[in-house]
Amino acid sequence: MRTGGLARFVDSPIVTLCAGRTDAGVHGLMQVVHFDTHADRPDFSWVRGVNTFLPSDIAVQWARHVPQSFHSRACALRRRYVYVVLQSPVRPSLEAGAVGWVFRKLDHEAMNKAAQWLVGEHDFSSFRASACQALTPVKTLYHINIHRRPGRPIDDGSADTRHSFEPCYWRFEFEGNAFLHHMIRNIMGCLLMIGQGLKPPEWMAQVLAARSRDAAAPTFSPDGLYFAGPVYGPQWGLPERTPAYDWLP
Amino acid sequence: MRTGGLARFVDSPIVTLCAGRTDAGVHGLMQVVHFDTHADRPDFSWVRGVNTFLPSDIAVQWARHVPQSFHSRACALRRRYVYVVLQSPVRPSLEAGAVGWVFRKLDHEAMNKAAQWLVGEHDFSSFRASACQALTPVKTLYHINIHRRPGRPIDDGSADTRHSFEPCYWRFEFEGNAFLHHMIRNIMGCLLMIGQGLKPPEWMAQVLAARSRDAAAPTFSPDGLYFAGPVYGPQWGLPERTPAYDWLP
Repeated sequence: MRTGGLARFVDSPIVTLCAGRTDAGVHGLMQVVHFDTHADRPDFSWVRGVNTFLPSDIAVQWARHVPQSFHSRACALRRRYVYVVLQSPVRPSLEAGAVGWVFRKLDHEAMNKAAQWLVGEHDFSSFRASACQALTPVKTLYHINIHRRPGRPIDDGSADTRHSFEPCYWRFEFEGNAFLHHMIRNIMGCLLMIGQGLKPPEWMAQVLAARSRDAAAPTFSPDGLYFAGPVYGPQWGLPERTPAYDWLP
Repeated sequence: MRTGGLARFVDSPIVTLCAGRTDAGVHGLMQVVHFDTHADRPDFSWVRGVNTFLPSDIAVQWARHVPQSFHSRACALRRRYVYVVLQSPVRPSLEAGAVGWVFRKLDHEAMNKAAQWLVGEHDFSSFRASACQALTPVKTLYHINIHRRPGRPIDDGSADTRHSFEPCYWRFEFEGNAFLHHMIRNIMGCLLMIGQGLKPPEWMAQVLAARSRDAAAPTFSPDGLYFAGPVYGPQWGLPERTPAYDWLP
């Protein structure tokens, strides 16, 4: 989060801490930021007031007074990401930059099967960018849920049936305790190779076991990746999602 | 449609004709363009080939050889538009530029009631921009369908209940034989005043009857407006929608 808007709202410098980081080109559905201040305003004034100072593509969604012991990063038990893919013979246009794209049909069952190899605590070195600064490559993935949102059949005017399948959007939901640099984009690269039939589902187990970046598919585009926010314990009483979560297919 | 991509694909100038026009800031889900050419390519080559020459936010969705008698504008029997509104105490961020925004709750029944005054053949002068070049202000609206896509309750951390309603997206679908300049944005301005309880549903009948732009609400933002495409007779066998239609809430 750019914090200039916050400092302008209270008219003094403010040091903020974020729950997580994202690559360039990745979208944020809910970043959580905490800070200390002597300014005393009602919760919703922090929302409306700071938003008047922020650029149009970023907005405070909620604000809450928290105990001194709360820390946006340290208290985050889990993190959620969503990846959206357009499956269509034609590249995205309206959604350019907001979705990944494949032009072959994806096999739901094959991807589900492959994803199950990754759930649990594993050494994810095969999906780790060389620039990653995490202390350990061992992370826990709680789930990968894959949903297909059915489209309506589109006649593309082609007699070539390779191009006349039904376009649709896919939504991949990830929840884990933490993620390595590029981890989801590297997993997506592998899942989509399997989904397109270029590799069998069991290949995912081999990639994971190799603990080497060379074993995996190329890093997939950042376009369809959304940080959906951190998950905190119920004692903090914080919102778990924002309306933009429902904007995605 | 910018036609540079088409001319580059066939490597000679091409004159194109569009089915309709949109204001700056309005989005296009499906524009239909026709042209004459001596270039002989399979239908899908026109899609893939031209797309390599177009900017990332525009893409040919389908191509079809049509009889000489087809004309993209003259043969269009109806036109469809969609308007998407975010109802939320907080302004859009991820969807900035892609949705209109209201921060008060909208009344579904009041808007439905008001919309019914507009269905049918009417003189729509009250909703017509002064720059409009249409030959007549008399147009036929076949339907206005209003859908609310339920959101999930969001706790915005405010004790002030005015700000703690459930954010959601609204989708307004318009179908008519043709539309005047700014007609939908002017109708949206009136529908949203009624939806917010600032005017009663019957006010729409008064605005329509006045046949004066002064009677209506201010022109609403172009941000949430989408040209969903023309509708042709079944004899042409053309697609009625594109995948992006399903991208919208």
